[in-house]
Amino acid sequence: MSEAFYTIVMGLRGFIKEYFHSFWDYETPKVMVVKNRTLGVIYRAVQFLVITYFIWYVFISQKAYQETESRPDSSVYTRMKGTAVHGDDILDTVEYARPSEGGDVISTLLRREFTYDQRQGTCAEYFNVPNANCTTDSDCVEGEVDFEGHGRRTGRCIQYYNHTFKTCEIQSWCPIEEYAVVREPPLVEAINFTVFIRNSIHFPKFKVLRGNIKRADYRKTKRYLNKCHYHEDTEPYCPNFRLGYIANKARENFTELCRTGGVIGVFINWDCNLDLDPSHCKPTYSFRRLDLRKDEDNSGYYYRFAKYYNKNGVESRTLIKAYGIRLDIIVHGQAGKFSPIPTIISTVTALTSVGICSIICDWIMLTFIDKNEVYSDRKFDEVIKEPIEHIPTELSYISSFGSNHSDLSEGVPL
Amino acid sequence: MSEAFYTIVMGLRGFIKEYFHSFWDYETPKVMVVKNRTLGVIYRAVQFLVITYFIWYVFISQKAYQETESRPDSSVYTRMKGTAVHGDDILDTVEYARPSEGGDVISTLLRREFTYDQRQGTCAEYFNVPNANCTTDSDCVEGEVDFEGHGRRTGRCIQYYNHTFKTCEIQSWCPIEEYAVVREPPLVEAINFTVFIRNSIHFPKFKVLRGNIKRADYRKTKRYLNKCHYHEDTEPYCPNFRLGYIANKARENFTELCRTGGVIGVFINWDCNLDLDPSHCKPTYSFRRLDLRKDEDNSGYYYRFAKYYNKNGVESRTLIKAYGIRLDIIVHGQAGKFSPIPTIISTVTALTSVGICSIICDWIMLTFIDKNEVYSDRKFDEVIKEPIEHIPTELSYISSFGSNHSDLSEGVPL
Amino acid sequence: MSEAFYTIVMGLRGFIKEYFHSFWDYETPKVMVVKNRTLGVIYRAVQFLVITYFIWYVFISQKAYQETESRPDSSVYTRMKGTAVHGDDILDTVEYARPSEGGDVISTLLRREFTYDQRQGTCAEYFNVPNANCTTDSDCVEGEVDFEGHGRRTGRCIQYYNHTFKTCEIQSWCPIEEYAVVREPPLVEAINFTVFIRNSIHFPKFKVLRGNIKRADYRKTKRYLNKCHYHEDTEPYCPNFRLGYIANKARENFTELCRTGGVIGVFINWDCNLDLDPSHCKPTYSFRRLDLRKDEDNSGYYYRFAKYYNKNGVESRTLIKAYGIRLDIIVHGQAGKFSPIPTIISTVTALTSVGICSIICDWIMLTFIDKNEVYSDRKFDEVIKEPIEHIPTELSYISSFGSNHSDLSEGVPL
Repeated sequence: MSEAFYTIVMGLRGFIKEYFHSFWDYETPKVMVVKNRTLGVIYRAVQFLVITYFIWYVFISQKAYQETESRPDSSVYTRMKGTAVHGDDILDTVEYARPSEGGDVISTLLRREFTYDQRQGTCAEYFNVPNANCTTDSDCVEGEVDFEGHGRRTGRCIQYYNHTFKTCEIQSWCPIEEYAVVREPPLVEAINFTVFIRNSIHFPKFKVLRGNIKRADYRKTKRYLNKCHYHEDTEPYCPNFRLGYIANKARENFTELCRTGGVIGVFINWDCNLDLDPSHCKPTYSFRRLDLRKDEDNSGYYYRFAKYYNKNGVESRTLIKAYGIRLDIIVHGQAGKFSPIPTIISTVTALTSVGICSIICDWIMLTFIDKNEVYSDRKFDEVIKEPIEHIPTELSYISSFGSNHSDLSEGVPL
Repeated sequence: MSEAFYTIVMGLRGFIKEYFHSFWDYETPKVMVVKNRTLGVIYRAVQFLVITYFIWYVFISQKAYQETESRPDSSVYTRMKGTAVHGDDILDTVEYARPSEGGDVISTLLRREFTYDQRQGTCAEYFNVPNANCTTDSDCVEGEVDFEGHGRRTGRCIQYYNHTFKTCEIQSWCPIEEYAVVREPPLVEAINFTVFIRNSIHFPKFKVLRGNIKRADYRKTKRYLNKCHYHEDTEPYCPNFRLGYIANKARENFTELCRTGGVIGVFINWDCNLDLDPSHCKPTYSFRRLDLRKDEDNSGYYYRFAKYYNKNGVESRTLIKAYGIRLDIIVHGQAGKFSPIPTIISTVTALTSVGICSIICDWIMLTFIDKNEVYSDRKFDEVIKEPIEHIPTELSYISSFGSNHSDLSEGVPL
Repeated sequence: MSEAFYTIVMGLRGFIKEYFHSFWDYETPKVMVVKNRTLGVIYRAVQFLVITYFIWYVFISQKAYQETESRPDSSVYTRMKGTAVHGDDILDTVEYARPSEGGDVISTLLRREFTYDQRQGTCAEYFNVPNANCTTDSDCVEGEVDFEGHGRRTGRCIQYYNHTFKTCEIQSWCPIEEYAVVREPPLVEAINFTVFIRNSIHFPKFKVLRGNIKRADYRKTKRYLNKCHYHEDTEPYCPNFRLGYIANKARENFTELCRTGGVIGVFINWDCNLDLDPSHCKPTYSFRRLDLRKDEDNSGYYYRFAKYYNKNGVESRTLIKAYGIRLDIIVHGQAGKFSPIPTIISTVTALTSVGICSIICDWIMLTFIDKNEVYSDRKFDEVIKEPIEHIPTELSYISSFGSNHSDLSEGVPL
């Protein structure tokens, strides 16, 4: 125990002493230079590939020398514009855009289904609800609330409105939507509605603030920004987007959208290389439908709301099932700027990767080229387990000449 | 100055000349092979540990060979379903779900506190407001607006409604909520309400689009999606979530929630390994209460809104303080796919880490095993500061045989 | 072909045999120790710089030993408080805060422009709309809907309200806003409104849950949380923010904001070092205006909504253009905790970077210090392309003594 401890302490002491003694020495690995053209060509070719890969792909294409920041702070303000005439009904932005506050989700009505003059009372349940069909009162359980139904059953079996068959009576908002619904034709003029989108982003790490409305545009008359319509090629800086343009770019049929409604994503993408001037940092827009639409039952977008009023002292409502387009403004951003840390990490990785070339070339050299073991003799200096200790001085002198092959060391005549 | 400059130029010239001359040479480090079983075993053991660590933890567990993308684009559409009977009052989705547009935040009423028939006028301030209690008009400062109060003081001291004490009169919506409030019992039937959640995500980098409603389900009848209720084990692909199930999974008491309201997060987690088929990329759901609830005063969820109407030509309102559950649908996602860059970086790091073994083993070798300095003699070829310059040819010839020990070099008889 | 194949197989066989034979050998690079003080000092200085850089910048400042998680789950609940008296009009939170549900975006009215008593009908178009001015009916195309106008033209040219000039008649909500608008003075008392912000965050990876309201505060009376106003220095844990304080911190003039409206970001920043106790993880708040405001036409924040009512059996509305402050509560978060993987990767990178020192020092050594090529002779062991094969034993014996210079090897007399 104390023996081992002593050895460790001595080892450490020796190590520390040695360390301080040789602190100012410079150590550099010994290198064997192989003057073999084949090997040199292979070595340089592999090196060239690795370096090219790093310079082209990692540094130029992936910009690995940049510190990046993604998902900037984003603020979106939206406002719908346009007027539609629907029979004698005029719809302006207050009527069709919801919610009115103008955040990053805005929807516009395209088609409405009205159920007028509903009030709380009793009426016949919809015939398609399970167990709603009845012939006598005993078919209807009083107080039962069916999950798919519209209200609580009163226990009576009554005529289904002006039809001949009967369904259970329920306590509900009457008449029920399925019976009394009035479908309006779609608001096809909505194809010309525009949505004004103002987006400003901020990269907190780089302290860069950008907006999607160009400064230069500000100096133009207010009329320009009111009149222009965004177009990828001709008007890339106009912040007014026609619904028809959006639907088209999202590869959707506007007439079909009017029928089922839909959710469309407006993607604003900021890809900023801040090594250039921030003014080069401009948004690109893309549009994609977000609700899956393989089956019509489950895609589409609609919601219900009601307008309440007092009719002869009774609270009444007009129930509106509204199909529409919901625009989700989704902002993506990424900024990159030169920074020493990723540069150093990438460079070190690159340099280290060059070391892989040596592994490959060593293997080739030792296996295919080195037939007479000349290279391996020189590269590998084998030291046997039990070093020859008590050699006469001259021999020791000779043997300590860096002989590289154990056979040789072993072959020294004692 | 010009001397130094000349030296540098010569140095560079020599360097470049040398460089081109030896461009096709292959350089490989010289290696000492130590045939010592103890050291070999230690070396291989350390190497094994490092390699195992990298293969198991970094590559298999952390999937370091994959390029990842997190936070996909997400679109959420929600719709509440269910009917509740509240006395003679029927509440359907239009009444209890807000906002109606169906975004990623949806709330349902669970309990309402009504203040009926408020209109603008003057009435007594709530007695708990600081300095509201008074005995004479001089206690009330005209025009003062207390931050915790309900309006502007008129300067008069009046009877507190039908009580015997007096408070300052204020100009406000009268009567005040604290006095006139009517509390409704909670809507316990809401435990059976369901919320339909449609979520589609998109990983832009990998161009993968997924939805939480399975294609196969689409082919089933519409009725299935209307009827089913999500259950982790039995119905994992049904997008209808019972409020009772959500509260239960969030470990909340529904009755308690009805009393105080609360914000519950519905977490949809997409963890996608895109090296497999995208169809393996399925969401998992989890539920957690988001408002801290140690103190009842500050947790919970309620909001106030009003219904306006015209009563005898005067604008009146019914103020409603609504306690409810707000569901925040929060979508997480992460996708990984094999990519050469992270693979190379991880591999290079792994290979480099193996180099650490050498540092450890060198220290062991030189400190504990190398008692006779045989190894260090061979490993280190010390070169003294002032090299012997004018040696006769033969001696020079001999001394240049790579002798590895400075003692030796110094021992050459001049 | 078979020759080449045989060679490869033999090569592989030899390689594998060799590999297993020497599996337990320990290989360590041979190193040349240069006892040159200048070089040693340069070497240590470069090493010191690299190590200092890694320890200070990478490990201490950038905390590269930590696993990080950013963008935590966040839940925000907001509630406006305060009462304003506007002439004889009392505005409480129900009137001025929208939407009422209290999510992460909340707006308050500051100034309203009313257009009273609009109803669907026909009236004169606004004179500033293109082509709206007319002298005879023939100037107005029936059925035309101008994008900047308010409705569909009837084809008649009528007097512009009580003015002397004429414009085209349109079917619209009449009278038009531009003619009938009534501007209200701004709600300057709103400077004292407060917004209560409750934010709770969750780092899923680290399973840490934090809220912006301190536990200790919970134990204080309810009154404290109702009364206090946030102040960076004196009340950093109070969750009530005065609008005036917010505007001030965002360096905005409140009076100016009342005029144009604006979007202000309330940034809640969580920077958590989870190696310390989670209770050290506290939010900091900052405030910044989010809408660009170089040009008044395009910055600012307003929205329109309407109050509908029934007047003598005709659906009428009061159109309100509301200027206000929209607060976007934006939560940032980042948490770091010690983890072995980033530590190992950073350490390995650091150690590898130290290797760069050798490259620099080698270049210095070989170019400037090594005048007599003593160092390069020792460092580089050149092996010529065609190794001397059939040398008599003694000479072979001698030549295999690691001679370091090709000139020398070539100089061996055959």
